[in-house]
Amino acid sequence: MEHVTADEEPSAPLVYRVERNVFDEEYLSSQLLHEKERTPKTFGQRVAERCRCSSEKAKSAVLSLLPILSWLPSYPVKEYLFGDIVSGLSTGVMQLPQGLAYAMLAAVPPVYGLYSSFYPVVLYTFFGTSRHISIGTFAVISLMIGGVAVREAPDSMFPLNGTNVTGLVDVDARDARRVQVAVVLTTLVGLIQLFLGILRFGFVAIYLAEPLVRGFTTAAAVHVFVSQLKYLFGVKTKRFSGPLSVLYSLIAVFKEITSTNIATLIVGFVCIVFLYGVKDVNERFKKKLPIPIPGEIIVVIVSTGVSYGMALFENYQVDIVGKIPMGLLPPTVPEFTLLSNLVADAIAIAVVSFSMGISLAKIFALKYGYSVDGNQELIALGLCNFASSFFQTFVITSSMSRSLVQESTGGKTQIAGLLASLLVLLVIVAIGFMFQPLPQTVLAAIIMVNLLGMFKQVRDIPALWRTSKIELTIWLVAFVASVLLGLDFGLLVAIGFAILTVIYRTQRPKSVILGQIPDTGLYYDIDEYEEASECSGIKIFHSNSSIYFANSDQYVNNLKEKTGVDPTQLLAERKSQQKHAKTKNGEKKNSNDSSLQKRNAIAKLDLELGVAHVVLDEAQKQVEVLSNGQVPEAQGESDSEEVHFLQPLCPVHSIVLDFTPVNFMDSVGAKAIKAVIKEYAAIDVRVVLAGCNRTLLSDLRTMQFFSGPVTTDIIFPTIHDAVLYCQHKRALLPCPAVH
Amino acid sequence: MEHVTADEEPSAPLVYRVERNVFDEEYLSSQLLHEKERTPKTFGQRVAERCRCSSEKAKSAVLSLLPILSWLPSYPVKEYLFGDIVSGLSTGVMQLPQGLAYAMLAAVPPVYGLYSSFYPVVLYTFFGTSRHISIGTFAVISLMIGGVAVREAPDSMFPLNGTNVTGLVDVDARDARRVQVAVVLTTLVGLIQLFLGILRFGFVAIYLAEPLVRGFTTAAAVHVFVSQLKYLFGVKTKRFSGPLSVLYSLIAVFKEITSTNIATLIVGFVCIVFLYGVKDVNERFKKKLPIPIPGEIIVVIVSTGVSYGMALFENYQVDIVGKIPMGLLPPTVPEFTLLSNLVADAIAIAVVSFSMGISLAKIFALKYGYSVDGNQELIALGLCNFASSFFQTFVITSSMSRSLVQESTGGKTQIAGLLASLLVLLVIVAIGFMFQPLPQTVLAAIIMVNLLGMFKQVRDIPALWRTSKIELTIWLVAFVASVLLGLDFGLLVAIGFAILTVIYRTQRPKSVILGQIPDTGLYYDIDEYEEASECSGIKIFHSNSSIYFANSDQYVNNLKEKTGVDPTQLLAERKSQQKHAKTKNGEKKNSNDSSLQKRNAIAKLDLELGVAHVVLDEAQKQVEVLSNGQVPEAQGESDSEEVHFLQPLCPVHSIVLDFTPVNFMDSVGAKAIKAVIKEYAAIDVRVVLAGCNRTLLSDLRTMQFFSGPVTTDIIFPTIHDAVLYCQHKRALLPCPAVH
Repeated sequence: MEHVTADEEPSAPLVYRVERNVFDEEYLSSQLLHEKERTPKTFGQRVAERCRCSSEKAKSAVLSLLPILSWLPSYPVKEYLFGDIVSGLSTGVMQLPQGLAYAMLAAVPPVYGLYSSFYPVVLYTFFGTSRHISIGTFAVISLMIGGVAVREAPDSMFPLNGTNVTGLVDVDARDARRVQVAVVLTTLVGLIQLFLGILRFGFVAIYLAEPLVRGFTTAAAVHVFVSQLKYLFGVKTKRFSGPLSVLYSLIAVFKEITSTNIATLIVGFVCIVFLYGVKDVNERFKKKLPIPIPGEIIVVIVSTGVSYGMALFENYQVDIVGKIPMGLLPPTVPEFTLLSNLVADAIAIAVVSFSMGISLAKIFALKYGYSVDGNQELIALGLCNFASSFFQTFVITSSMSRSLVQESTGGKTQIAGLLASLLVLLVIVAIGFMFQPLPQTVLAAIIMVNLLGMFKQVRDIPALWRTSKIELTIWLVAFVASVLLGLDFGLLVAIGFAILTVIYRTQRPKSVILGQIPDTGLYYDIDEYEEASECSGIKIFHSNSSIYFANSDQYVNNLKEKTGVDPTQLLAERKSQQKHAKTKNGEKKNSNDSSLQKRNAIAKLDLELGVAHVVLDEAQKQVEVLSNGQVPEAQGESDSEEVHFLQPLCPVHSIVLDFTPVNFMDSVGAKAIKAVIKEYAAIDVRVVLAGCNRTLLSDLRTMQFFSGPVTTDIIFPTIHDAVLYCQHKRALLPCPAVH
Repeated sequence: MEHVTADEEPSAPLVYRVERNVFDEEYLSSQLLHEKERTPKTFGQRVAERCRCSSEKAKSAVLSLLPILSWLPSYPVKEYLFGDIVSGLSTGVMQLPQGLAYAMLAAVPPVYGLYSSFYPVVLYTFFGTSRHISIGTFAVISLMIGGVAVREAPDSMFPLNGTNVTGLVDVDARDARRVQVAVVLTTLVGLIQLFLGILRFGFVAIYLAEPLVRGFTTAAAVHVFVSQLKYLFGVKTKRFSGPLSVLYSLIAVFKEITSTNIATLIVGFVCIVFLYGVKDVNERFKKKLPIPIPGEIIVVIVSTGVSYGMALFENYQVDIVGKIPMGLLPPTVPEFTLLSNLVADAIAIAVVSFSMGISLAKIFALKYGYSVDGNQELIALGLCNFASSFFQTFVITSSMSRSLVQESTGGKTQIAGLLASLLVLLVIVAIGFMFQPLPQTVLAAIIMVNLLGMFKQVRDIPALWRTSKIELTIWLVAFVASVLLGLDFGLLVAIGFAILTVIYRTQRPKSVILGQIPDTGLYYDIDEYEEASECSGIKIFHSNSSIYFANSDQYVNNLKEKTGVDPTQLLAERKSQQKHAKTKNGEKKNSNDSSLQKRNAIAKLDLELGVAHVVLDEAQKQVEVLSNGQVPEAQGESDSEEVHFLQPLCPVHSIVLDFTPVNFMDSVGAKAIKAVIKEYAAIDVRVVLAGCNRTLLSDLRTMQFFSGPVTTDIIFPTIHDAVLYCQHKRALLPCPAVH
């Protein structure tokens, strides 16, 4: 749109010209507008339509379920294959070390990370719709799995048999159990994702607002970082899970800091410096390097070599990865007996895993101009997790760092991911054992350097401070809650909080009085703009919110405060006037209607006002009489009391409620507005509604809003219509009218 | 307003006439509108203003805290006193039996119900602002207290010493403990209410929407009814609390149904029939009876006499009230050690108690034209509960049934409540012991008949079905959750659900395409109205919701679907056209820009479009050339590729987003809209925004929405302005323009 700038505007100004009668809803709905006749389909027809089966429908269903069928046949080998191969190899050499490292986060032996970098990745090639994301292990998800695994299979459950030394743990039994937990959790996550995908519930991810996700992932980075400290220092501490686990872990590490293994720390530190350097170089010379330097695999290979050569484990007690079994495991059925404790965790992990995947996928789709299908992605992730879990994998999603490499090295399709997984397979079946001497501290270094991007998200804080305080609060709540309460509860709290902010926005509406910008038909805030001038006797109230149970009181209060017209107070004044008059007249006339009046003062006032107005309307021409504040005794019922009613209680004769921002009203809101209209009617102030949208109007009709004194002729399509109407009505009275 | 009906409309129609230039925001904000200069007060000034102390301020603070000071001095003895005395006595004789009965619900001995009907009622006279509500014991609150008391002091905690028979309970110890629990809970509720009141948090009650409260109280009636069955049948069962307690209680009663005490059942049944009859008579002859027949006190007196005379307890094993100590207890400090378990319950009870009180108070205030102050009511209730709890009372609030009696018998001020409490005091200190033979089944009967009004709320269901399905769902969720999960969890679930419905309403907006009603400047749904006609080439999209994280995706999807213009698809088509052209031209020219294009296709398109448009704008006059789809090679850069770009991809040239319903946008929403504008720009469709309110505009500025291709000249004050602008822009192009 940048081409349409002001200076290219043609010089002759474009004219806005509307001339028509003033409309009210009464006229609009009965005369001007005619609803289209629609023959609604019968239930039978609709069912038949839904269920009709055709070969095209079946074909499109299959294509949507197996997207590979739509893109593979037209795969342009010559153009895409080279890019996909380069990209696949680059991603594969990242999958390897990350798989090993993230398995540590998930509290399972490293080889399971390799499995998780193979099976699901292959499956995603068939079912996924995103061409650029790299499916596989991911730090945040791995940590969440680890938390559950540790909770369900704590060290204390596995005392070492045969010894009575407390604190010694049967590591093999424990790890086997943790794998079982992680695997069955993965099955459950897969089922949940599949289920949500089939029900077209892809929209659940929308509750994860961007500031929420960024606050949450920053908190996850803190968790991950803290959990890796012990590997970096080479100290032995328990692994904690649950609320405050970050603090406990930190304390535990610092308690043991004196027993730091210097060799481990040095190796780790060197790796961190090297990896950070490589990352920096890759970023700086992004455009010059054909492919990014694969720092992680270099670190892994070199450090494995060094560790093997120097016998770091034997000579310096540097913890190493240890036994890596060769080959793949046969499929087994997960331990479903564990399921019941894991449902809540599984839901959290399923939602986080999906929302990470879909947000990355959408970014790439937007960049390259294709579309990803949220529900199909959910099904794809669900299938990947579910099916792979029978081969002992843990939950996967797309990883930001790998996806960026896959995309920037020229990956064009899911083929790149497939090739990466084949590279992993090669390692698993052939040379996995070679990584056995790899020090754990190297993996910790890899994990920590990969967290950098997430930590950089703290820069959001000043940015959000400038743009939106509410979103900053969401970010901070998500961060603090997730750091302190753990990722699962933290996520729950953050989502709840994000939802509350929406309520809050509707509950603290900004209320202003509008004034006319002369000769434009536009109405803007009188406190804000010099040009906006109030029409005398008319208050136009604008409040930027819908009206419903949680803010209807507020709306009414703001209305009374901003317009400065408080019916209760004015009514009390009128009553005291009235009483005064009565006392003077003696009570002879009023003795029998006093109980009626006590029971329903407002109803009586309505009645009296009605009478008074009939008088008024008949006496339109006798303006000079009225201007003295006296009503001729046109009807028998009107006595000196009515005179008091006609003395204007306040200079405001009409209030226009700007209803353009009102998107919905519930019955509580409708009652409140109705009550306000009646209250103001009792003190002779006309309340009209302007700019209701048609949907709201039909809702109001359903709620029987238009009954009693509230009729459709107080509804106007625009504020200007309403103002003209009110001015016109007033012009019939003696006060000076503004036009 | 009923006086302004259509037939009274003057015959000469009122004319709406606006003639001005078409405005865009660029012009509005820089030329037409001038923001008022406001010298913001310095922080110091504001603090000084806040803290300035004056005798008036102090006086008004005292008056607001002790409302009695403002109304008692001007109490019109002659007019009000008689009504207050009659009303006070009528209410007092209801306080007595209800106090005894609701103490049973609260799981404490009956005399504590009398205490609760005295102390807080006296205090409310001084602090309360409502003149008509009757403060005292209330069924729902009493039941909630009872639930907590039973949970904290279950039968099993008090085995009878000295015997080994299981199932026997040390009733005295248990009841003493339950009183402690109820009392300390009351202290806590009082503190919470006081605290909320001082912090001006009276608005918390707004979350209790009317359908929610009605569903909740109906559920409470079910709980109360079920809890009283055992007294009516005279069977001995455990008292249950927590989720599903209703079912357990029912099952327990039916298991023991064979041991029903026939005498108890008969007495209870007779009382129910009598009370129901009296209630009916009172309602039918409301206007003829000077005061309602005090059925409850009659039943209590008669049945006490009968029970004493016939020795129902000794001869027929009818359970009676038993020991009622004489006189008042000295003040004691509540057992604060119990506090920690009770916080959550106390919050729930505090909120429910306040919301019951304030809703009744508001109804009467509206009816009689005075105002109640929500925060002062909260403070008053808090003080009543807190101070009284030192005298062993349980939580009170206003009771619907008593308040209606107090009002209808002519009560005018808080004096009536004071008199009622004095009557209760008289009974406590003088004749309380006389009620000892009162059968418990009579109290159960009183409670059950008082539930009738609450049970009648099920009539809401068909009424809500007709008016609002969402509110029906809130009602049902509140009811079902409260019945099944217990009142505390039920309330929590119901509030959570009610909040979610608000989100839901914003998340499933109704999206429509608007069309012009000719010659009116009004735009309505084209699917709905025959008169609404689309302007050719312009789609006006309206979606009745704000745009934020939870619905921005939905908004964009609806936009693409309703307008029928999908940029992704059109862009793909364009790309294939482009590729086709390229293939024909050979790849010689494109070899060096291919990587750039890969990296940022959209940016390139923007750029090219910009170029193309400059070409267009320069070539405005050469319409005949353009109409052949050929661009003269005006600039060196433009080659045959641009020709393809200029072939219109779809018949829609402009999209107007109706932003009148958009009350707020968060950064996610703003990004989504910005992305949409760019996406459409890439396929040469202009997107403009119409009817933004000023608050939203300033928020958008803060969020840096206006940057890059998005400028303020795409913002228009009304849809009509936007349409005229788009038509004008299009008219410069060869296609037939509509005006």
